[in-house]
Amino acid sequence: MTNSATLRVLPLGGLGEIGKNMTAVEYDGKIVVIDAGVRFPTAEQVGIDLVLPDFSVLKDRADDIEAIVITHGHEDHLGGLPYVIKQLGGARKAPKIYGLPLTMAMGRSKLDEHRLREAELTDVKPGQTVKTGLFELEFIHATHSIPDACNVAVKTPLGTLLFTGDYKFDQTPVDGGPADFLRLARFGEEGLLMLLGDSTNVDRPGWSPSEALVGPELLRVFGGLRGRIIVTSFASNLHRVQQVIDAAIELNRKVCLLGRSMRKNVNIAKSLGHLDVPDGLIVQPRELEHLPDHRVIVMSTGSQGEPLSALRRMAFRDHPQVRIRPGDTVVFSATPIPGNERAVNETIDKLYQAGAEVVTHKDAPIHASGHGYQEEMKLMLNLTRPKYVVPLHGDFHRLELHKRLAVKLGIPADNVFCAENGLPIEVDAKGARFGKPVPSGVMYVDGTDIGATADAALRDRRSLSADGLFVVVATIGDDDGKSVAEPELLFRGVPFEHDEAFLKAVRDQVDASVERAAADEIHDLDEIQRILHDDIAQLTWEKLKRRPVVLPVVVAV
Amino acid sequence: MTNSATLRVLPLGGLGEIGKNMTAVEYDGKIVVIDAGVRFPTAEQVGIDLVLPDFSVLKDRADDIEAIVITHGHEDHLGGLPYVIKQLGGARKAPKIYGLPLTMAMGRSKLDEHRLREAELTDVKPGQTVKTGLFELEFIHATHSIPDACNVAVKTPLGTLLFTGDYKFDQTPVDGGPADFLRLARFGEEGLLMLLGDSTNVDRPGWSPSEALVGPELLRVFGGLRGRIIVTSFASNLHRVQQVIDAAIELNRKVCLLGRSMRKNVNIAKSLGHLDVPDGLIVQPRELEHLPDHRVIVMSTGSQGEPLSALRRMAFRDHPQVRIRPGDTVVFSATPIPGNERAVNETIDKLYQAGAEVVTHKDAPIHASGHGYQEEMKLMLNLTRPKYVVPLHGDFHRLELHKRLAVKLGIPADNVFCAENGLPIEVDAKGARFGKPVPSGVMYVDGTDIGATADAALRDRRSLSADGLFVVVATIGDDDGKSVAEPELLFRGVPFEHDEAFLKAVRDQVDASVERAAADEIHDLDEIQRILHDDIAQLTWEKLKRRPVVLPVVVAV
Repeated sequence: MTNSATLRVLPLGGLGEIGKNMTAVEYDGKIVVIDAGVRFPTAEQVGIDLVLPDFSVLKDRADDIEAIVITHGHEDHLGGLPYVIKQLGGARKAPKIYGLPLTMAMGRSKLDEHRLREAELTDVKPGQTVKTGLFELEFIHATHSIPDACNVAVKTPLGTLLFTGDYKFDQTPVDGGPADFLRLARFGEEGLLMLLGDSTNVDRPGWSPSEALVGPELLRVFGGLRGRIIVTSFASNLHRVQQVIDAAIELNRKVCLLGRSMRKNVNIAKSLGHLDVPDGLIVQPRELEHLPDHRVIVMSTGSQGEPLSALRRMAFRDHPQVRIRPGDTVVFSATPIPGNERAVNETIDKLYQAGAEVVTHKDAPIHASGHGYQEEMKLMLNLTRPKYVVPLHGDFHRLELHKRLAVKLGIPADNVFCAENGLPIEVDAKGARFGKPVPSGVMYVDGTDIGATADAALRDRRSLSADGLFVVVATIGDDDGKSVAEPELLFRGVPFEHDEAFLKAVRDQVDASVERAAADEIHDLDEIQRILHDDIAQLTWEKLKRRPVVLPVVVAV
Repeated sequence: MTNSATLRVLPLGGLGEIGKNMTAVEYDGKIVVIDAGVRFPTAEQVGIDLVLPDFSVLKDRADDIEAIVITHGHEDHLGGLPYVIKQLGGARKAPKIYGLPLTMAMGRSKLDEHRLREAELTDVKPGQTVKTGLFELEFIHATHSIPDACNVAVKTPLGTLLFTGDYKFDQTPVDGGPADFLRLARFGEEGLLMLLGDSTNVDRPGWSPSEALVGPELLRVFGGLRGRIIVTSFASNLHRVQQVIDAAIELNRKVCLLGRSMRKNVNIAKSLGHLDVPDGLIVQPRELEHLPDHRVIVMSTGSQGEPLSALRRMAFRDHPQVRIRPGDTVVFSATPIPGNERAVNETIDKLYQAGAEVVTHKDAPIHASGHGYQEEMKLMLNLTRPKYVVPLHGDFHRLELHKRLAVKLGIPADNVFCAENGLPIEVDAKGARFGKPVPSGVMYVDGTDIGATADAALRDRRSLSADGLFVVVATIGDDDGKSVAEPELLFRGVPFEHDEAFLKAVRDQVDASVERAAADEIHDLDEIQRILHDDIAQLTWEKLKRRPVVLPVVVAV
């Protein structure tokens, strides 16, 4: 990243999606970072709490980063901020961070939890422009499934880049008005160097339904119910929360919020005026038992079947305050994110088993995606008429489909760059091209640590979890290398610890191996451990057809 | 299971579905077992190869089992047979096993692999009746996504039970003709005691599409292609294989079969006349390079994204014979089974990345389910007019929906029994009711073992995989209990093994703990290990905020 006349755009995260969680822009040695998100681990990433984009390429360059811009408050764009700040040298050394007010409020709440209060988060308004060193940043109001989402323009000496962030073109949004069509069209007029566009729903033809269509459907579903209603949705979808609240008012029901993130987001949104909640509407869980069933709506986290969420705990009869019973109806105002289907289905079946009725998006149109469909991507391209297009936020297939859309609209195929994470796109006076790949990938947050070392640990965990573990301790005399105590055997995760014949065979083998080493005058403990490992592993395979992790320990006394 | 005048029906398997993999019928101390299937493990069941229904309640009763009946050749109905035979005392002591010819041929192939050739598998024909002691078994031709599927009637002194097995009412099946409507209707006329019906697709309204509609769609898709075609489907769906073969003939392409189960099933089906394959049509993988692209159809396993399948290996550029390249089109003639979505999506994206086009059921109707929809379940109920209905093959929700269908058709709600695995339904002269639950659940096949011991092992593996492992070896003098060698520390799956300050703290703690135990005159090694465990676990949590499995070993010399 040295050539001063070259502009570089570097997508950095994360798993299976390109440029989703973080993208860096560099010009003349100075950097702007767009988004700092996380992903949740897959079932194979055992014991991992969060997955971060590997941004080690930025780690030693805290001083060069002019700004971190967060496009909106969803976890996959904001959730990595505490870890990024820590890696860049802590709150006091952190670059300036910009975003719209709700995004920044959610960011502050996160940084508080990580004791990073000293980082400087700056609220900007839609339409506002911020100058940071070489770059000028402009924030353009966008519609998405959370308030205060924006497109971000990064103006550089070589031209303007427009990051769409996550967006749809909702003509009748619940909060904040439609997208800033005029400003987007002016980019087309002024000449836009590069559009970096969301590809999430590029495989869906047509237009996404408006969020405003969900409210009347919820009201229709709720209106037909006489028992308690439990609604679940993404806690950050405050438009949905508002529509549930509106339906509750209409139906003369009280609303009880369950789940930490639901309560937290509602509080933040209320304080910023994104939610209109009449006094006395919200009740506490302990008040539920005093209300008749037809006066209750519970709004809960857990729409994705998350293990510790309020809804999952209710379904498994493990919630301290709410017990599901016949007459209850649980309304899923969300669709499962790919990979979560099994957890969601399990939750639903447990709810049925507890006697509840369940209503999902298959029964009524009670969910709308926050990401635009094909026609909306075409509109974005036609409004902004960029010279170059970089599809982001998708797997390889989606970026390719986005490219085909752009080409259909007349953008030359050579001007569309389907990048990979860690593969920079370079622009200079002569044109644009791919640069040399830089180290990229993912980092794991594991307990409180972040790091690549977890990679090796993850491999170990996988083999430990596949066939279990077998520890063999041999104690030998320091002088002659002969066994001086009965070998100790320890097992975890293997079902043969009561097989006495096998245990005896292992003990005999330990003695034989130690004796052989002594006879061969092998005194190096590591070498004896290697011999023991190989002998015991082979014995275990022969006798049991298993390959547990064998850990030999030789103690010399 | 003792009352001689009582008929008992006991659903036994498996995970999340009720009575799917095995159901037992008992009368007067004699038993018939319907199906012996397996399930594949979920991502959380680490290191487990297969999941079996827990049939321990049958284990000591090999002599009482008059017959095992297999309704069709799918893994979830047939795949557990080798394990069931082993648990019942081996091939020579195995009960007689009955099924239609393809099912039995697939069963024999399985038993061969497990060296259980001496078990007696008897081919029966549709319409045939077999008398086994107290029971009479009748096999009724049914349509499903594999040839030779059947409904099974079990005639008892108290009346007839009809197990539907898996079925749809395909009016234009590819092989074997439509269902035996007349025989089913005669059950209604004769009086059917109980219908035990498939509930898989009870949440889908209307009729399932015929398998015969898939062939023309495949031909239409294939006909538009000029490059190589790679089709993937379930290897046991021989109707689909036939339709791919027919399309290949029409389009003058050769067919190459990839994947062990695909080749095996095709060979068995050909030998039984279920597949019509002209000589010279099938080519070997090594011949592919000599054929022009437009002359090739590869038919492959891997439609579910299975890790070692041929298609997955092609997608990850790891297949020894076929390398995906631009111009190839991969056609998924199957839908992902819930839970497999992520693996399938990953495979698809890798195929795109390798330059292939991908066509799925979302692009064209190139898959048809093997399970009937709501109207077909209604037809089954209206044809057979049972006194009692037991919905099987589904989660709690599906059984409940199936019950509602039956009630809508006029069957009294009290005569419909939504059972659970291990919960018997008992019928005698006075009526039907639920009996007392028996032990049930699942067993794991882990390497070559089956057993409940694996349950504890599974828990261990989960904790090993969550935070890794930490072995601490202390060596103490036999006489005074004092440390006589430097503590040994071993780690697996934890990313802090190079943290020297932490390692020193642990060694110091080991010495301190051992010293304290010696001072307190604690000489019991187990007790010293407990002390070490608690001290080290606490230290690790304080210093690192982690909870690896701590395994202390104390060696006395």
